[in-house]
Formats: sequence, C-alpha cells, structure tokens
Amino acid sequence: MQFGYSDKTQKLRERVTAFMDQNVYPAEHAFADEVRANRAQGNPWQPTRVMEQLKEKARAQGLWNLFLPASEKGAGLTNLEYAPLCEIMGRSEIGPESFNCNAPDTGNMEVLERYGTPEHKRQWLEPLLAGKIRSAFAMTEPDVASSDATNIQARIERDGGDYVINGRKWWTTGAPDPRCKILIFMGKTDPDNANKHQQQSMVLVPMDSPGVKLIRPLTVFGDDDAPHGHGEFVFENVRVPASNILLGEGRGFEIAQGRLGPGRIHHCMRLIGVAERALELMCKRVKSRVAFGKPVADQGVTLERVANARIMIDQARLLVLNAAWMMDTAGNKVARKEIAMIKVAAPNMALTVIDWAIQAHGAAGVSEDFPLASMYAKARTLRLADGPDEVHRAQIGRLELARHG
Amino acid sequence: MQFGYSDKTQKLRERVTAFMDQNVYPAEHAFADEVRANRAQGNPWQPTRVMEQLKEKARAQGLWNLFLPASEKGAGLTNLEYAPLCEIMGRSEIGPESFNCNAPDTGNMEVLERYGTPEHKRQWLEPLLAGKIRSAFAMTEPDVASSDATNIQARIERDGGDYVINGRKWWTTGAPDPRCKILIFMGKTDPDNANKHQQQSMVLVPMDSPGVKLIRPLTVFGDDDAPHGHGEFVFENVRVPASNILLGEGRGFEIAQGRLGPGRIHHCMRLIGVAERALELMCKRVKSRVAFGKPVADQGVTLERVANARIMIDQARLLVLNAAWMMDTAGNKVARKEIAMIKVAAPNMALTVIDWAIQAHGAAGVSEDFPLASMYAKARTLRLADGPDEVHRAQIGRLELARHG
Amino acid sequence: MQFGYSDKTQKLRERVTAFMDQNVYPAEHAFADEVRANRAQGNPWQPTRVMEQLKEKARAQGLWNLFLPASEKGAGLTNLEYAPLCEIMGRSEIGPESFNCNAPDTGNMEVLERYGTPEHKRQWLEPLLAGKIRSAFAMTEPDVASSDATNIQARIERDGGDYVINGRKWWTTGAPDPRCKILIFMGKTDPDNANKHQQQSMVLVPMDSPGVKLIRPLTVFGDDDAPHGHGEFVFENVRVPASNILLGEGRGFEIAQGRLGPGRIHHCMRLIGVAERALELMCKRVKSRVAFGKPVADQGVTLERVANARIMIDQARLLVLNAAWMMDTAGNKVARKEIAMIKVAAPNMALTVIDWAIQAHGAAGVSEDFPLASMYAKARTLRLADGPDEVHRAQIGRLELARHG
Amino acid sequence: MQFGYSDKTQKLRERVTAFMDQNVYPAEHAFADEVRANRAQGNPWQPTRVMEQLKEKARAQGLWNLFLPASEKGAGLTNLEYAPLCEIMGRSEIGPESFNCNAPDTGNMEVLERYGTPEHKRQWLEPLLAGKIRSAFAMTEPDVASSDATNIQARIERDGGDYVINGRKWWTTGAPDPRCKILIFMGKTDPDNANKHQQQSMVLVPMDSPGVKLIRPLTVFGDDDAPHGHGEFVFENVRVPASNILLGEGRGFEIAQGRLGPGRIHHCMRLIGVAERALELMCKRVKSRVAFGKPVADQGVTLERVANARIMIDQARLLVLNAAWMMDTAGNKVARKEIAMIKVAAPNMALTVIDWAIQAHGAAGVSEDFPLASMYAKARTLRLADGPDEVHRAQIGRLELARHG
Repeated sequence: MQFGYSDKTQKLRERVTAFMDQNVYPAEHAFADEVRANRAQGNPWQPTRVMEQLKEKARAQGLWNLFLPASEKGAGLTNLEYAPLCEIMGRSEIGPESFNCNAPDTGNMEVLERYGTPEHKRQWLEPLLAGKIRSAFAMTEPDVASSDATNIQARIERDGGDYVINGRKWWTTGAPDPRCKILIFMGKTDPDNANKHQQQSMVLVPMDSPGVKLIRPLTVFGDDDAPHGHGEFVFENVRVPASNILLGEGRGFEIAQGRLGPGRIHHCMRLIGVAERALELMCKRVKSRVAFGKPVADQGVTLERVANARIMIDQARLLVLNAAWMMDTAGNKVARKEIAMIKVAAPNMALTVIDWAIQAHGAAGVSEDFPLASMYAKARTLRLADGPDEVHRAQIGRLELARHG
Repeated sequence: MQFGYSDKTQKLRERVTAFMDQNVYPAEHAFADEVRANRAQGNPWQPTRVMEQLKEKARAQGLWNLFLPASEKGAGLTNLEYAPLCEIMGRSEIGPESFNCNAPDTGNMEVLERYGTPEHKRQWLEPLLAGKIRSAFAMTEPDVASSDATNIQARIERDGGDYVINGRKWWTTGAPDPRCKILIFMGKTDPDNANKHQQQSMVLVPMDSPGVKLIRPLTVFGDDDAPHGHGEFVFENVRVPASNILLGEGRGFEIAQGRLGPGRIHHCMRLIGVAERALELMCKRVKSRVAFGKPVADQGVTLERVANARIMIDQARLLVLNAAWMMDTAGNKVARKEIAMIKVAAPNMALTVIDWAIQAHGAAGVSEDFPLASMYAKARTLRLADGPDEVHRAQIGRLELARHG
Repeated sequence: MQFGYSDKTQKLRERVTAFMDQNVYPAEHAFADEVRANRAQGNPWQPTRVMEQLKEKARAQGLWNLFLPASEKGAGLTNLEYAPLCEIMGRSEIGPESFNCNAPDTGNMEVLERYGTPEHKRQWLEPLLAGKIRSAFAMTEPDVASSDATNIQARIERDGGDYVINGRKWWTTGAPDPRCKILIFMGKTDPDNANKHQQQSMVLVPMDSPGVKLIRPLTVFGDDDAPHGHGEFVFENVRVPASNILLGEGRGFEIAQGRLGPGRIHHCMRLIGVAERALELMCKRVKSRVAFGKPVADQGVTLERVANARIMIDQARLLVLNAAWMMDTAGNKVARKEIAMIKVAAPNMALTVIDWAIQAHGAAGVSEDFPLASMYAKARTLRLADGPDEVHRAQIGRLELARHG
Repeated sequence: MQFGYSDKTQKLRERVTAFMDQNVYPAEHAFADEVRANRAQGNPWQPTRVMEQLKEKARAQGLWNLFLPASEKGAGLTNLEYAPLCEIMGRSEIGPESFNCNAPDTGNMEVLERYGTPEHKRQWLEPLLAGKIRSAFAMTEPDVASSDATNIQARIERDGGDYVINGRKWWTTGAPDPRCKILIFMGKTDPDNANKHQQQSMVLVPMDSPGVKLIRPLTVFGDDDAPHGHGEFVFENVRVPASNILLGEGRGFEIAQGRLGPGRIHHCMRLIGVAERALELMCKRVKSRVAFGKPVADQGVTLERVANARIMIDQARLLVLNAAWMMDTAGNKVARKEIAMIKVAAPNMALTVIDWAIQAHGAAGVSEDFPLASMYAKARTLRLADGPDEVHRAQIGRLELARHG
C-alpha cells in the first residue's frame, strides 16, 4: 500500500485545483442560470455556453482526458494517480465535464480505446476525446432486475450484414443531451446459450439511427437534471452494420465487467470530493449562522457531526485509494472485492455527510441556492446504479465467507 | 390513554378509505399527467381539473373540512378522532386537498376561526372552507435562522389607518398557486419591545396587494412541486387596512404557538400514512420482483427491513396518537413535549421507511413512476419546516432534564 | 386501543412505587454488599437476607404475585393492567423478585396454574406462589440452534411408570440458585413424529433428582450474576414418575408457545423500567458533572441523546401497551406479531439508552458503582433469549408480506 | 501516504503470526482454566504459569519489546511498522503480554525511556523490558471528570528531600497484579499556577510504598478481569524521594500528552485485530450453524453484516495506518487530529463487529466459551479510557472548523 502522490500527481493536483478555483466554482451560478433560462425558453436540453467555454479553457491548459490510462492517447495516469484529481473535479457538478472526465463518457472512451476497431476509434473515440460529442451506455431495463445481467431482455439479431436491435432501456445517462451521438447497447445475441455470460453482446448505435426513440427524460426526486439527465428509450428494429459489434458476439458480459470496475471507482472518487465540498459548506454555515444568541457551530450536535463527517470522509478516501492501488497492482478482477466495498461505502458516506450539511443549512439546504440538494439526489442514484448496495454486499459477504473454509 | 376509535371515527374511516380507493388513488396518474401537460404548455402552476373534481366529489359526500375542531363550522372531531382520518388521506399526495384538509390551509383556517373578526371570517374563512380559494403563511426568512422567532426581520408599521409591510419571506408554501388569495404575514410591529415575544404581529395580506412580489418558486431537490410548491416573496411597502391585524399588535408569537401545534401533528399524522403506503409498495415490489432466481422478498435484508419498518411505523403512530390525546385532554401547551417528540420522530421514521422502499424498487424508486421520490422530498422538508429536528430535540432534552431537579 | 390506567392499576402503581422508594432502592447497595461478602466467603450462590426481608415486607402488604392472571390464586390483572406495575418493579434489579414477580418463576407458575394437575399445584405451585422455592425452565441446548424448536435433542423416554430423561441444557436461568427446587424440562418424546411440533413434551424434574448435574454457572460478559445466574446442566438417566408430564406427550411445543408470549412481554415491560432508570441516572449525572467549565448537560450531544432516549422509551412503552392490549382482547395467538415486535424493539431500545447513560457516567458507568453495567448485560441477553432478534424479525416480515397478497 | 510493509515488517509479521498460531491461540483455554482454578482457590490475582511460559518462548525468539521505538533498547520500528504486528498480537487477549507489548507497560516503558534518569531506567525500565515486573499509570480520579486534566485533585507536595502524595485514583490498570511494582502517578504540584497545564507533575511511586492502599478491584460489566484488571487506590501521605519526579515539576501535562498518543494508537491497532478475530469467528459460526434447515450464512442479514464488518474493519485499519504514518512523518503533535479520529473510530467499529459476532453465536456469544464477550467489555472501556468519544469528537470538530476560517 503506497498511497502517496507521485510528482506528476502532485503537480496536476495543483493545476486542477487552480483551474477549479479560477474557472469552475465561479461558473456554477452562471451555468445554473443558463440552464434555467433555457428551460424558461422551452429547451432545457440545449448545450450551454458556460460548459463549452470551460472545456475550451481546460483543454488549452492540457487538463484534458486525465482519466485515460496509459495508451497513445491517454494521460497515462494509474488509478491511484488519477484518484486525487478525480476527487477535486468531483467537488463541483460541472467539474468533471470541464475536463472531459465525465461519466458515462469516460467509461465509453475506455471501452472504445480498449475494444474498438481502428474505424470505431476514428469515427467515435476521436470526437469524444476532443469533447465534440457525447456518448451513452444502455444496459438497464425497466421490466427486469438488471443487477442480474442474465435478466436482460433486449435482442441484437444478425440479419445479413446488419444487426437488428429491439428493446427498451432506461436510465441511459446523458442520452437526452443533443450532443450525444453514439450509444453502446447491451443486448442478447444468443439468449439460449448454456453459458449465461455468453448470451450478451455490445454494439455501437448511432443516436440518429432510425428506430431509436426517446420515450421521456427520467426524473430523480422530480428533477430531470437537464441538460445531462437520464432517458428512457425504445429501440425498434434499429439496424446497424455488423461491424459495429464490439469484440464479437457473446463478449458483452466480459466488456461490461471490464467497464464497470473503473466506472465504479471514478464515481467513488468524485463522491469523496462531493462530501468534502458538503462538509466545507457545512463548516462555513455553522460558523456564520446565529440562532438563540450564538453561532450554530457552538451548539448541540454540530461538532459531533463535523467530527464524524471528517472521520467518515477520510476512511472512505483511504478505502478508495486502496481499491485504486489494488486495481493498479493486482488487476480489476482480483480487486473486485475492494471495488464492491467502496461502491457500497462511498455513496452511503456521502449521503450521510450531505444530509447533515443540508440540515445545517435549514430549508436553504434542500433548495437550489446551495449544491447540496443536487449532490444528494445524484449520490442517491449511486446506491442503485451499477447494482444496488445489497447486491454488492452479498458479493462481499460471500467472498469473505469463502476465506474461512 | 384511550386511543380507540369512537363510533364516529370508525364510520368516517370507512368512508374516507372508500373515497380514497374509489377516487383518489385512481386519479394519481391523471393528476401527474395533467401537471406534466400544463408544464409542457408553459404553465405548471395552473389549477388542475383532476383536483377540482375530487374536491367536488368529497364535498358532496360530506367528507370535507374534517380537520376543523368543534365549532359552528367544524366537523367537531378531536385530534385523536381526526388522526386516523388524516393518516388515510396522507397516503396519497393528492389526498388531503381532495378533502380540503391540506396544509397550510388547515392551520390558516384554524387561525381565522379562532382569532379572526366576523369580517375576516366572511371575507376569507368562508371561501377557504368552501375550497374556493387557498391561503399561505409567511413566517420564514432567508437571511436569519427562523427557528428562533426573535430573529424575524420583517416590519409591519402603522401608518394612519393602514399597516405598511416590508420584508422578504421564503418557503411560503402554496403561495405561488394562483388560487391562493390570502396570506398571513408575521413581522415585527415593535422590534424594541423588551419582551421578545411581544415584538411580533400577524396581519392578513391579500395576495393581489401592490408590492407583493413573487421572486421565484423554490425547488426541493430540484423539483418546484407545482402547482403547490413554495415561493420566495418580497413585500415592498405593502399597505393593508389596520383592521387586517389578527388579535392585535404584539400577539403574533402567541398566535404562532397556537397555530403550530395542530399544524405539526397534522403533518405527522399524514407521514404515518405516507410510510404505510411506502411499506405497502415495498412489500408488493419484493414479492413480485425476481433477481438471481428468486423473489427479492426471499433474499438478504428484505425481511429485516420490512419488519423494522412495521415496528417503526407502529411506534410512531402510537406516539402521534398519544400526542393527540394529550392535546385533547391537557391542552396544546402541556402537550408541547409530546408534540415536539412526534415532530422529530415521524419525519425521520418516514424517511427511513421510504428510503428502504426506494432501494427495493431499484432506480424506479427515485423516478416519477412511483410516489416514493416525491414522498421522500416532502418528508425531508418536514425535518426543517416549523423548526429543524435539532431545535425540537434541544427543547425535549431541556424538559426532560427539568424533571430531574 | 384503551391504554389508560384502571382504578385498580392506578392504586397499585402508587403502592408499588412507594414500596420501591421505601424498600427496594435503599436496599440495592446492601444486596450487592451481601452478595460480595458471600462471594468472598466462597459461596456467592447463597440466598440473601436482604431479598428474603424484601419479600416478607411486600407479601405483608399484599404486593405479591401481581403477575398472575385472573384465577383462584391470581391478582386478576390483565396484561395491560400489569404492564405499568411490571415496569416499575423492573427499575431495580432486585425489584421483581421482591414482589415474587421475577422470571422465570412467573412463566413457570403460569404454566403450572394453567396446565398442572392438582398434585403438581400442591407440590410446586403453592410453595412458588409463597416465594418459598424457586424454579427453572430448561429448553435451550448448547449444540443446536434452539430458536428452531425442532432442533431439540434432549430425550424423554417412557420406561414403565417413569420417564427417563437425557440431554444437555444451558442458559437454564435461576437453576444454580439453591432455592430452586423444580425445573420444567423440554425434550422429545417422539422424535420421529411427522408433525414436527408434536415431537416435544414437558416434564417436571425436581432439582434433587439423581442424574441432574450442574456443569457450571454460565457467565455474561464474564459475570456469573450469582445468586441468580444461568446454569449449564447435564441430565443423565434422570428418572421421574410418568405423572410429572405436563398436559401429555407431544404437547411441549404447544405449552412453550403459550408460555413464551407472557414471558416475553414481561421482559419488555421490565426493560421499559430499566431504560427509564438509566435515563434518570443519565439526567442526574449530566446535571451534576462539570467538565471544561460547565455541566455536561450544557455540552455537545447531551440534550440530543436525552431527547432521543425520551422518544425511544415512550415509543417502546406504547408498543408494549399495545401488545398487552392485543393479548388481552384478541389472545396471544392473534397478538404474536405484536409480541414479536416488542421483543425486538424493547431490548434494542434499552441497550441504546443504557449505553448513552454509561457514556455519560464515564468509566463509572461500566463499574459496579451504578446499576448500568448490569442492566446492559441483562438487556443484551434479551436480544438472544427466547429467540434472537433475527428470528423474530423474519417472522414479523413474513406476517407483514402476507398482508399484501 | 506509504502504508506498505517494509521487509523488516513483513518478516516480523510472519514470525509473529507463526508464534500466535503455534503458541498463543492454543494456550487461550489453558490460561482461562488456570485463572478459573486460581479464583476457585481464592486468589484470582496470582500470576499464571501459562503466561510466564509464553513470555519465555517469545523472548527466546526475539519477539520481544517490538513496540519500543528506535533507541538503544528498542526494536526500532516506526509506528507504521509496528501497527500490523500489534494488530496480530491484539487478536488474542493473551497476545500482547506474551510479547511484552501490553498496555499500560508499553506506555510506561516509553515514558521511562524518554524521560527517565539513568537511575530510573536501571531500577524500573530494565526489569520492565525484561518482563520481570509490571507497571501502572494513575491519572483518572473518581470524583472529577478526568478527561479535563485541569480537574485533577491529587496532590504531590515537596517536603524536604521527598514528595508527599495524597489522592484517590481509579481505573489504574494492571495495578492489582502482584507483579506490578511501579506506578507513575499524576498529581498537582502547583495547583494555583496560572498556566493550567503547568500545575501537574508525574512521580514514580513504588507499589510497596507505605500509604498505597488498594480499595478494590473494579469490575467491567461485573467482571474483575483478574489477574490483569483495574484498581481503585487511595494514596495517603505516600512519601517518595524527590528524585522520583519525571522531567521536573510542572511537566506532568506535557508527559501525558507525549504518552497518550502512542498509547491510544496501540489500543486501536489491537482493536483491528480484535475485530478481525470476531469476524473470523462469526464467519465460521454462520457457516457451520444450521437453523430452519439451512446454514445461518445463507439466511437473512448474515451476508450484509459480514460485508459491512469487512468494510468497517478495512476502513478503520487504513485510518490507523494513516495516523501511524502521520505520527512517524509529522510528529505526534501535528497528528493529534488523526490520533483523535482513530481513537473514536476504532472502538466503535470493533464494538459493532463484536456485537454482530455475538448475535451470530446466540447465547454462547455472551458466555466465556468464546472470546467475544470479553472482547466486547474491553472494547467498551476504550470508548472511555483516555477520554470519552465525545471529548475527542469535540476536538476533531474544532480542528476541522478552524480550517474554514
């Protein structure tokens, strides 16, 4: 366990922090205002000027695509090196995209980089890496418990030189964004295969393919989170060239496993940053807010909650770093217990800290005047996305029991 | 402690339950669709046909204004008699208003009934009791910790035969609704009075008074909850006749104390219903949803959570009934500890149960496909409305310590 | 739900409270001293003068056997009437026995009263009711999960006019006490019966029967709790007359079910008293103890914990009363969910409150200077006795799910 | 943050683990039996043959005094290097003393090593390092909140060439052990000093000094934990030579601060081992115990608890390592927040894990058949020893708030 910052990381930390301070935090209100204005004009899904300007600046400074592991395109950071940077970006809702390090694009770019053909890379990875388009990943289905991948009902059927796709997907994050041009679709090519993990395949589906229909943007606690958001889609006889398949038929489960490890830990890294920001807001609030004649900081449970928040955040950060280090040194497969552990621990920790911060802000805490309500809603979805806590805990429990033969 | 149902209550329970089954639950989706359609047309705050029809039906059946205590207008139910009815109505978000038993109108009607002049009653109470208009209550202010009523900054100044009102208020529930015609405003008439509880007064402010400006609807977790919702308002030199004052100058704090007791317990009664509904949804979901080869009901923590939910709900209901019984038999002032206890216990209980139900629904749980996300957001605000948990716990703690001289 | 005190109860409450104030609390230290002295002399299991004097006084005042339901011998109190008295007695570790209302004798006396023959009653019930002897109940076995009654391994075999008993039992409460003269033994008479609930029988075993061997007193957190305590016993070819069987062969499970309901709720009633006492001690401590220049009562989490303790205790008491009322009005079988609920809720509530009280006392809290440590140890066993929480929660969960067909 | 094992640590881990496997675990029952036999003969405080043999073996293997930092006597391990060894030793109650690494001797030896005169070292440190005698540390007092060191009432007064000591101390760990020969006493030499942290001094008090009186061994949950245990002592005009003072008058608080840092983290390291052992026992139990037809491992909350235990232990271990690393690299003073954090986190984590393990063992869990009950009692005292959680949380909270000026 060597969790220290490399020189490279230390320098990037300083540069990313400076960029956040100079550009990102100051733009938060302008971003919200622009979205609100777009909504008032009937188009909340419209791309924002604020974000495009942030991206331009970050790219100009070379603070771009830091997530991508060693490769010809990538920044070449290990998970352990990237973690502290991802945490800092995660402190603002508009942070990760500013650096082209936002989900689900990061996971999708990794998939294309690792499993895509040269043509896939030219057509989709290049513009994604350039921040010119966005992407989506369609796995979850409304009618079945998708945490069990064998439940998937969507079909991908070979028809001559094409695949024909049919199915209903939801929680397809980022897909309602008009900048989203490409979607990775998971469905079954061989539903009767005795090996349940070889029934699934993944194909690339351009968003403008005939038969791709947005049913509705989905809301979380009533909020559609435009212009990012999640969509419910129907795919009706969507036809793509057979070359759009990734790796080959029956490899979908394998790709999903490879994709979800880094995706999960990136979410957790960001959640550490989210929780730090919430605690910072809480500390500032309780020091400045006076009730019954003295600052809230000097009353009741305040110190206890601040202390517990600090303990919980530091523990979760160390657990994330440990998982990252395991992934780097032993591989994603060996690290699956560590990944599952942090996938359980980080969202629950963040929700507790944010909830305390909300409470310290009074009703302002649930409003749009502070980022806390939005943080809460997003962190809440992460107890469900990529499998609910309960599924991960069952896996961790089984792995632990197996140690005591 | 006599918590049994009186004959009157028992009959009303059956009738309210039947009305819910036949009219309210079946209208939930239609209501949501109508609001969504209104929003798509740019006016989410527009009154809904669905609600007006429900009200008409309930009124026709005499299931109307059940909250109002014994009086010439009221149903004459005690708090203990009303509690089980309020619980049933609370099971649906559109339940309470259907019966003209929604907050904040119930509290406002009680204030007018108890403290209003004959003219106040004619002008405002009559149409409220008839469900023709709605009302609001403006106490909380953005710039101060409003749980400490002495912090209030808004001013009500006498000027000839008028009062002139200035101040900023927020979380004024129901005020953005165009049907809202009257608002009870709390401000200081005598900010220098040595007795801190005689500085405040309450005046009636017609919503169409010049100088009443809606700054914005506020959101909870990003949702404006139109057409009900909460507003932020500025009052600039708003002028009302001196006769609009309630009880007289310096009586505002006293009225607030009288108003908040029943208001708090009504919220708690509804929350019992909310939690019952969430548990019911959870039970149905886990019995029907299959993952990894068997129903979720047969797996992991499901039974434990269902059991704990049942225990928590039953305990909270009994505590509500006990508080209601204390209010009925010993008065609101003696029952202030019991009211504070349930104000702490009910929202926290409900949030836990709803959160488990959400988790059992997977991502559907945070979406608009189930009422759970909306329940959660509303219950969350009730840990803050009328004072945060922490303030109530401090009061309970002090009262308890005082018993052990 | 009618939880009020009857006149009878109200008068008994006053008398029991007065007896506790005048006799029981003042004797607590003397009792502990006497046991300590006995231990120093090598015989901690010796009966105490303090207790025998308390019993004499209580009996003289007619505060005796209050637990026993309507019958020729009993006080004739309903569960609801007895609950508040049992709570008061439970406030002191030496309270219940002072009134001859201690476990497991109460349950055993109920069994004898309900299922015993006239001869059983003459020989064993009479001296038990007189407080002259004590009794035990042997069900739990070390080698199997006894919460599943079908696991029981002990054998009761007919041999001529006798039953011959073999088995190993532990957690046989009160059996190491030399005053214990009779034990109710549960074992299998018909282990191959297809109906798993007709395999078991109960027989009366005099403690001085040849073959009854005390292996050891068991400790809880290292404390043997003499002179009450729990024992591990071996029964080797213990021979009792066939007339010692209760109800008849195959009726053991049925008797157990009948016995455990009241036994469980009595434990829960006492735990309410235990928690009240702990809270009282906590309040007194935090008001009198000064650290960092002010009373602990004015610092940090104190008020929050006092408030939460009050809420938790009141909720649990109401749930106990509700279960008692259900047992009285609908019968123990219908009330099995309510009994299970309080069996889960009361010990967990009490442990939390006691733990907070311990923390407020500093290291003194875990010592013998306050009753808190002993309270904690006893309450902890009640999360296991008569089935662990988990088994009760599973039952509650299944009953709840069954409501939602 | 570099938490990896050095080569030295790795080799020692293997050797300590082997010693535990071959010698310590197998001796646990023999140790308990010997203490029980001693108790039956009226002398539970007698030294045990089992322990003396273990010490001899460990010393012969050079697994001895590993705790002592770099010095002429010490093993020269950093806190980070010692942590994993201390964890392994902590897995057994008789582990640490076997390696002469038990509290409070480790802290006392460090004090003597760092602050003692050559004569102090010769007379007391040498035999302590040799495991020939034991030592105690007397700070806590029964009449005041000792977490506030300025509350200390004991007096150390100069009288000619002597100091005269008066005071009452309790929770003096290890002092009732007849092998305990020396005690470090904290009292006030200058109670009126305006600087509250220069009022206290520490002196060495031989246990056989006239006037040192053991009032009683203290119990934890009723258990005196002989032959280790805690004592309450009165010091009446105890006279020691002036040369017995450590560092000089007024330096007591300073030494305490220096002593408590390592002492606290050692406790926490051991608690990680305790929790690992409890989890291991739990896993074995649930795999082997059958109820209702299948192993407990396959039922209800078992997997959830196992998973949560694993997450909690790993987080706490990482937090301990981080605190150790901070102490090594930045010093104990800078690391005071990290030390306080782990002092809060580790005992609470351990108590939760042990409690789950107890529950999984049924009533056996609270008995002496498994080490769980004893683990629980000891871990419970560590939420109080060296200051209750609440004091540490308040300090952490204040340090955190100070970061957000």
